[in-house]
Amino acid sequence: MRLRDLGIVPGIHPPGPLNAITDVPDVRVGHTTLVRGEGRLVVGEGPVRTGVTAILPHGGSIYRSRCPAAIGVLNGAGEITGRSQVDEYGVLETPIVLTNTLSVGVAHRATVDWLVANDGLADDFVIPVVAETYDGFLNDIRGQHVTGADVLAALDGATDGPVAEGNVGGGTGMALFQLKGGIGTSSRVLTIDGTPYTIGVLVQGNYGRRHHLRIDGRPLGIEHPELAPERPAVVEGSIIVVIATDIPLSDRQLGRLCRRGMLGIGRTGGIGGHSSGDLLIAFSNAPSARVPRPAPDFRDLGVPPFLSTPRLHDAFIDPVFEATAEATEEAIFNAMVAAETMVGRDGHVLHALPHHWLR
Amino acid sequence: MRLRDLGIVPGIHPPGPLNAITDVPDVRVGHTTLVRGEGRLVVGEGPVRTGVTAILPHGGSIYRSRCPAAIGVLNGAGEITGRSQVDEYGVLETPIVLTNTLSVGVAHRATVDWLVANDGLADDFVIPVVAETYDGFLNDIRGQHVTGADVLAALDGATDGPVAEGNVGGGTGMALFQLKGGIGTSSRVLTIDGTPYTIGVLVQGNYGRRHHLRIDGRPLGIEHPELAPERPAVVEGSIIVVIATDIPLSDRQLGRLCRRGMLGIGRTGGIGGHSSGDLLIAFSNAPSARVPRPAPDFRDLGVPPFLSTPRLHDAFIDPVFEATAEATEEAIFNAMVAAETMVGRDGHVLHALPHHWLR
Amino acid sequence: MRLRDLGIVPGIHPPGPLNAITDVPDVRVGHTTLVRGEGRLVVGEGPVRTGVTAILPHGGSIYRSRCPAAIGVLNGAGEITGRSQVDEYGVLETPIVLTNTLSVGVAHRATVDWLVANDGLADDFVIPVVAETYDGFLNDIRGQHVTGADVLAALDGATDGPVAEGNVGGGTGMALFQLKGGIGTSSRVLTIDGTPYTIGVLVQGNYGRRHHLRIDGRPLGIEHPELAPERPAVVEGSIIVVIATDIPLSDRQLGRLCRRGMLGIGRTGGIGGHSSGDLLIAFSNAPSARVPRPAPDFRDLGVPPFLSTPRLHDAFIDPVFEATAEATEEAIFNAMVAAETMVGRDGHVLHALPHHWLR
Amino acid sequence: MRLRDLGIVPGIHPPGPLNAITDVPDVRVGHTTLVRGEGRLVVGEGPVRTGVTAILPHGGSIYRSRCPAAIGVLNGAGEITGRSQVDEYGVLETPIVLTNTLSVGVAHRATVDWLVANDGLADDFVIPVVAETYDGFLNDIRGQHVTGADVLAALDGATDGPVAEGNVGGGTGMALFQLKGGIGTSSRVLTIDGTPYTIGVLVQGNYGRRHHLRIDGRPLGIEHPELAPERPAVVEGSIIVVIATDIPLSDRQLGRLCRRGMLGIGRTGGIGGHSSGDLLIAFSNAPSARVPRPAPDFRDLGVPPFLSTPRLHDAFIDPVFEATAEATEEAIFNAMVAAETMVGRDGHVLHALPHHWLR
Repeated sequence: MRLRDLGIVPGIHPPGPLNAITDVPDVRVGHTTLVRGEGRLVVGEGPVRTGVTAILPHGGSIYRSRCPAAIGVLNGAGEITGRSQVDEYGVLETPIVLTNTLSVGVAHRATVDWLVANDGLADDFVIPVVAETYDGFLNDIRGQHVTGADVLAALDGATDGPVAEGNVGGGTGMALFQLKGGIGTSSRVLTIDGTPYTIGVLVQGNYGRRHHLRIDGRPLGIEHPELAPERPAVVEGSIIVVIATDIPLSDRQLGRLCRRGMLGIGRTGGIGGHSSGDLLIAFSNAPSARVPRPAPDFRDLGVPPFLSTPRLHDAFIDPVFEATAEATEEAIFNAMVAAETMVGRDGHVLHALPHHWLR
Repeated sequence: MRLRDLGIVPGIHPPGPLNAITDVPDVRVGHTTLVRGEGRLVVGEGPVRTGVTAILPHGGSIYRSRCPAAIGVLNGAGEITGRSQVDEYGVLETPIVLTNTLSVGVAHRATVDWLVANDGLADDFVIPVVAETYDGFLNDIRGQHVTGADVLAALDGATDGPVAEGNVGGGTGMALFQLKGGIGTSSRVLTIDGTPYTIGVLVQGNYGRRHHLRIDGRPLGIEHPELAPERPAVVEGSIIVVIATDIPLSDRQLGRLCRRGMLGIGRTGGIGGHSSGDLLIAFSNAPSARVPRPAPDFRDLGVPPFLSTPRLHDAFIDPVFEATAEATEEAIFNAMVAAETMVGRDGHVLHALPHHWLR
Repeated sequence: MRLRDLGIVPGIHPPGPLNAITDVPDVRVGHTTLVRGEGRLVVGEGPVRTGVTAILPHGGSIYRSRCPAAIGVLNGAGEITGRSQVDEYGVLETPIVLTNTLSVGVAHRATVDWLVANDGLADDFVIPVVAETYDGFLNDIRGQHVTGADVLAALDGATDGPVAEGNVGGGTGMALFQLKGGIGTSSRVLTIDGTPYTIGVLVQGNYGRRHHLRIDGRPLGIEHPELAPERPAVVEGSIIVVIATDIPLSDRQLGRLCRRGMLGIGRTGGIGGHSSGDLLIAFSNAPSARVPRPAPDFRDLGVPPFLSTPRLHDAFIDPVFEATAEATEEAIFNAMVAAETMVGRDGHVLHALPHHWLR
Repeated sequence: MRLRDLGIVPGIHPPGPLNAITDVPDVRVGHTTLVRGEGRLVVGEGPVRTGVTAILPHGGSIYRSRCPAAIGVLNGAGEITGRSQVDEYGVLETPIVLTNTLSVGVAHRATVDWLVANDGLADDFVIPVVAETYDGFLNDIRGQHVTGADVLAALDGATDGPVAEGNVGGGTGMALFQLKGGIGTSSRVLTIDGTPYTIGVLVQGNYGRRHHLRIDGRPLGIEHPELAPERPAVVEGSIIVVIATDIPLSDRQLGRLCRRGMLGIGRTGGIGGHSSGDLLIAFSNAPSARVPRPAPDFRDLGVPPFLSTPRLHDAFIDPVFEATAEATEEAIFNAMVAAETMVGRDGHVLHALPHHWLR
């Protein structure tokens, strides 16, 4: 069940066949979902309600065939590692790994291992991109249940095709508007100069107070204050937004897309709460726009000194902005529609969005 | 007639008595409105549909009793002078002057003159804050009809009390969503620790394609494509958002408010179009938060070496974020509701928003 | 007389034939120098010690054949208009005009006029780039002696070939390290893949306390406290650094060059003083890297939707960083070596750097 | 042996008694140094030449008594985690941990454990600050020899008093200008309004090509090309600069200090090479400037809604800028003077700076 199945269609552009980030050719997504135990919290034992989601920008060597990329920050109370390098180089050279706040270290270490195993790391130098949101309302987050093997499983299991949503992967224990949140995805197709291109979005959604929630313009959160945990799941959570496209775009243009992802958050009623880490990363995996990695030898870098990569002329970018905002909005609500009620540690409950609220 | 008179109330916080930026104590606003001539465009002769709006953060010497301030950029295709200094010092030390794109120079010069006359400028050094949006669809913008005297009139005429909206001041010739735009304002009142404080917003609104327009969640722009100029008034215009408050806030916190003003733009359906200068400036005029100007003498600066100014603890800032987003949204629609149909150069027409669309 | 004539050669890369920004093919520079009157300051009468310097990135239509560009800020207590748009679009579409602090408005207005006259401004929309430093120690800055005609003269008079330095153009009344400052320039030539390219720098230099001054590593300012005005010319002034190159570079890469210009300022002993506007702008005028301006018609933009412009692979950029830092350092000292002692308003004197200090 | 013992004294301000970051009252530093094995690289076995350095801003609960802080980036090809949150909140609420590039994950995880053990983490939410430079020329970096216990040892062992320099802690395997680098520190004392304050700097230095090296203005790297590894230790390495002070400063002001640390790097001849992660973090541990952590309960945050913390008036900040630049310069050279020749994996050698070069 997805948002569109309930008759709500954000925006004006058509989705791709899967209405998922994997409509962008060659993008892959993998989830490791950890749900174990119930009852009272015993740190280190559980209950466990967490996981890992990995996004591979393409199926080749990400480390060697780098994608133009940019990071944006609506509210910075969160972590996305690798930000300084993405800003400086304008490229993404690792997968994107999403997990819980306290597992960033484990995911960072495991991503290094995965890159060593898969890409060789000729010069042993790499800076992974790991982002997080907080699942401690349901999950024994302090117990550190995400292992390196869990992270490798998400990376190795990443595939194209349909993307599971809701209580999966990094989104397993997350909340949205004090209802159950998690992973959601959506896409839009644009035709430029006769060729179709795709913008895909995947979110790990975990933000929002109930009264902020607006769906399709209706102040649903004010109409429905019920089914909220007594103590908020999080005072104000976080969201990670991953924006992928096969349109050749420059890093500067991808930074602009991040800002439109923020507007998509705004359309849901989100305010970028004080303690929320609302972080966005956008990349283009168009093969023509990739940046080859030079060899680590200062005498023969093994790449030609000049690159000539295509990018969209800025004058044509407004529909891409529209598509980014509306796919972000829809991905967030897809997470809510797919998520199911979950009971976690100490009997804490996050209720699923009642679908009949939307009708 | 204002948005609330049509039964639409954005958000959850109550407005101040005027529902205007001047609800923030001591903020003053002045307009110079220039409407002259009609018919065919003759550069230098008209028709003239332009003006100047001045916002004074307080009624004292702005240059000497400086307000914490910050500037934000949703899309940078516009001008707000003084940005580098506001970023560096974290204070506003001049009025804010809004006008058309090509009159920034004249307004800059006149603001210097006004400061010399009013504040003395002991060290002859000042960097005015002048921002702009484009009114060339209706106005002989190339004709440079805004004079220094017009700018001084807006500055000298600035008062507290009700603020004229719609086709006035810098907003005279502006468009919103291919309907008539202009100046709009709104405010919100929050109680913190038993004391009421105000957040006020004033916009010079000039952006948006019709199909983006959403009011109160309704996709009004898709329902009503009619009454649009054949050639868009602007491919994508711009908006200047001025956010004022008497809550003691730091420059960092005011930068956070600017980002919530962006979300307010997003709630109207705005996408921060490619050629749009969507620029925001926020200041606190709380007397306790002001930063005194040192004397220009390097041996005796005339101020104590340490300042101790209050600011809100960040943990209390979420309602301020909410208030900023909703006052921005309402100010934009107030501009549209107040604006009247205007015919400008070459018979170009911008129609007023038909109020019955909202009912 | 230039720095090299005194036996001091900053850095390791060779200069171009003129050792000037105009070694970058097609870059043009024009100065209007205003020196009138002497004796006591009478605001509006003089003495006048000011001017305008214009830099044209190339000899064609700057507005239509736009150069990749970026702006950097070491310390923001100054003005460079157009910053938000350069950041957003990554291009420069106007000349760069340098003048005194209070003449920014006049220069802005005149640059609009020049663009209308020269480039047509099909859509009447343009945001000029005007930057400033403060010359009020010598000049009747409040008297507003720079006229629109003076600005047009600098723009119209811009040529390639040798560039006058010292007390000329926008640098006429400026100070460096409490000695006479002004305009200086320098260049470096790099060979990439067998082809020579040039990095050129022009500064309007007006910063520094005496004790900061270091030339060729010597703490000259500590060795020579003499010849300083009793009241500092400026507590801490400002510097505008213009970096030009014909290497195809992206806007992101040009932003990186700006940061290396900052290191060049640091090599002179500059600290980016509190009240200093240390602003940098870098552009590439490589014809292959230019960005054509679309037509203002939203239905037929008149440009193809995809651009494919070359840029240097980042792995080859370190020599460009070196060249930028050393040309900035040399341009600053060239300004000091060329500048001659000047007496200004109220008998204020700025002494020329005694060349024998360097021997 | 330190730089001053060789007769070279950067700048004009006096150092504190230890000429170390620990001259700032209550700052603590701990090192774990790992040197094991020799000969050929066997990944996972060694040789090991690496470590961890921990800086505690004060001896209390860092998580609850938070320090104003800011992060700066000269060149972003490196990692400092926690950057988005430091930017957003303007505070540092964890220790700063420095290690090698591939051990960021382990250090991140261990820092979480340390904070849980020491500060309780009432809401289980924390984002550590871990920064890195690359030591793979000497060290089996891929072998991941830094353990959580090593990180905890550096944190638990942090003390005030003298700070070991050179081949210690995170600096164990690092290079500077193709000579041996590592950890260095320095301080400056300023008197403001009759009270002495300290600015302290600690660097983990690992950047620079030989020909960039300038000491006390002399182009030492050009005079002495000898003793460089045939393959550069790193094409261009990195540097982490930690700036501490007990002057009450705001986060905005601390961001300004970071930019002056960049100028200190520039004074050594550094150019912020393309592949260098030149990252800076500055904090004030003045008790009066601290920001208390609110309770995680949204109904009673346990802190008053308004803070009133002192900060230096900007007009007095120039000496702080000077002190920051010169302490950064001296800390870098102290690292080189203290470091001893080290042989690492595969017989790779980094030679100590021959002290007689400086005489």
